[in-house]
Amino acid sequence: MGKIEYEIMAEIGVLSENPAGWRKELNLISWNQRAPKFDLRDWAPDHAKMGKGVTLSNDEIASLRLILNEMETK
Amino acid sequence: MGKIEYEIMAEIGVLSENPAGWRKELNLISWNQRAPKFDLRDWAPDHAKMGKGVTLSNDEIASLRLILNEMETK
Repeated sequence: MGKIEYEIMAEIGVLSENPAGWRKELNLISWNQRAPKFDLRDWAPDHAKMGKGVTLSNDEIASLRLILNEMETK
Repeated sequence: MGKIEYEIMAEIGVLSENPAGWRKELNLISWNQRAPKFDLRDWAPDHAKMGKGVTLSNDEIASLRLILNEMETK
């Protein structure tokens, strides 16, 4: 497989940080110079390494927000 | 590696569905009979296969909700 190019276009928020400094972050990332997508993923300090994660479209982010707010009211 | 056992304890919400029927879902899943964690992941129809995803603690879910609601007001 070829190299995956990515650029972190915006750092939106940090969900957590573990004792080793890895953080679970929500970012806007452009993969292979395509339009940026939301990305929820673990990162080593200074984004030196990426862990596993999922990408999310605008619609998926909006659905997730509704689901989380609905949960809170139950 | 051994087999990973899991049980979907609660189906919380569906973020999207693609033309092949795979859905991006937020569930509460118990892995290897441990306490359930939130899990954001792609699933084939009827949960026949799982795709990539991330697990989230209660605190990470609460942080994510705050981050998404803060985004909305910008």
